[in-house]
Amino acid sequence: MTHSHTLECRHIERQSGTAFRLKRGQILRVIDPMGEQVSDLMAFREDDLDEVLSSGRTIDYANTIYVTTGHILYSNRSNPMFTILEDQVGRHDFLLTPCSPETFQIIYGNHEPHPSCFMNLVNNLAPFGIAPDRIPTTFNIFMNVVVAPDGELTIGPPLSKAGQFIELRAEMDLIAGVTACSAEMSNNHSFKPIDIEIRE
Amino acid sequence: MTHSHTLECRHIERQSGTAFRLKRGQILRVIDPMGEQVSDLMAFREDDLDEVLSSGRTIDYANTIYVTTGHILYSNRSNPMFTILEDQVGRHDFLLTPCSPETFQIIYGNHEPHPSCFMNLVNNLAPFGIAPDRIPTTFNIFMNVVVAPDGELTIGPPLSKAGQFIELRAEMDLIAGVTACSAEMSNNHSFKPIDIEIRE
Repeated sequence: MTHSHTLECRHIERQSGTAFRLKRGQILRVIDPMGEQVSDLMAFREDDLDEVLSSGRTIDYANTIYVTTGHILYSNRSNPMFTILEDQVGRHDFLLTPCSPETFQIIYGNHEPHPSCFMNLVNNLAPFGIAPDRIPTTFNIFMNVVVAPDGELTIGPPLSKAGQFIELRAEMDLIAGVTACSAEMSNNHSFKPIDIEIRE
Repeated sequence: MTHSHTLECRHIERQSGTAFRLKRGQILRVIDPMGEQVSDLMAFREDDLDEVLSSGRTIDYANTIYVTTGHILYSNRSNPMFTILEDQVGRHDFLLTPCSPETFQIIYGNHEPHPSCFMNLVNNLAPFGIAPDRIPTTFNIFMNVVVAPDGELTIGPPLSKAGQFIELRAEMDLIAGVTACSAEMSNNHSFKPIDIEIRE
C-alpha cells in the first residue's frame, strides 16, 4: 500500500518529451493514460552528469532483459539509480536506443523529418547541460520487445492498458528525461501521450 | 577467399588487454587461440572520441541480439564503425557491460582485488585520452549469452574452438580496445589469452 503523495504532475503530449530534477527518495510514476504507448526514460546523476543510466550494468546484475518490481536500475558506475517499486505491466525494453532521425531513415526508409524520442530527450535535457552524445540506451517503459531463440527481435504492441503505470524510486539526486514515443512500430501505430507524477 | 595480409599481430595475455589505432578499411581479426575464451571489444572514432560503439543502435538496426557475418556495428551517432566480414563462431554478446571490480562484488560476492575487462580497457585506452565513463556496453566477442523466453540470461561456455576467429573491417578511423576476459563465468572458468591481427 502506497502512502506517497503527489508533488507534481506533467502531461507529455504525443511525440514530445520533458525533463526534470528528481531528488533521492522521490518516486517517479510513469502512466500510460490510454494504453499501448511507450515512454523512454533516461537519467543522469545531478551533481556529476558523467554518471548515467546503464542498460548493460542493469541487465547484467538483474540477470534478465525484463526488469520489473524489485529490480534496481544501475548507472555506468554500478551505483543504484532507481528501484522499481511497482510495475503494473511487467514488460519493458532495455535493449534498444531511443528512436532518432537516423532510426527512421535506416529502419523505416523514411527520409522526411520525423519527431523522435532521441531529439525530444536532446532538446529537453540540453538546458541541464547534457550533450546529445551522452544519451545512451534508454529504459523504454512499456515497450514490448521479444527475443526469439535465434536472437531475432519482434516489437509488439505494448502490454499496457489505459491507466497502468510503473513506479521508480530515485536512489540518488537525478536529472531525468521522459518521452511519449514518436515511433510507429513501438506503439501499434497510434501516437499517444504519457502522464508522469513525481511523488514522495 | 581473403586476399588480405597481416600488418601486425598482438598476443593478449590472460586477464589483460590492449588498445591501438585502426584505419578505415583495415581488418581486425580476433582469434581465440585455445577455445572457450571471451574478448571484449570497444571502439571510438579517432578524430572525435565522443562517437563510440553503440549496442543499442546496432541491435536495433540488425534486429537481432546475435550479430554475425554481414552485420554492421553502429556508433551512438548511427554511423557504421565495423562490418563483420567473417565469423567462424556465430555467437557473441552485445547485452552486457565488461566485467568490472563492481561486477565481481555484486554478482560474485568477491571483494578481493580481481582483474577485469573494464579496468583493462580503462588502462589501455587512457593513453588515447579516453575516460572510464566513456566506456559503455562492449561487443563481447565469443561470449555465449542465451535469453530465455521469460528474459532470464544464461551465460554458457563460448562456442569458439581453438583457432577460430571473427574478422571486422573498420568503417572509419578508430581507436580500439580489446581484452582477454577476466571473468570466471564467461570462459568456463579457464582464463586464456586472445590473439589479434590487424590486416589490410
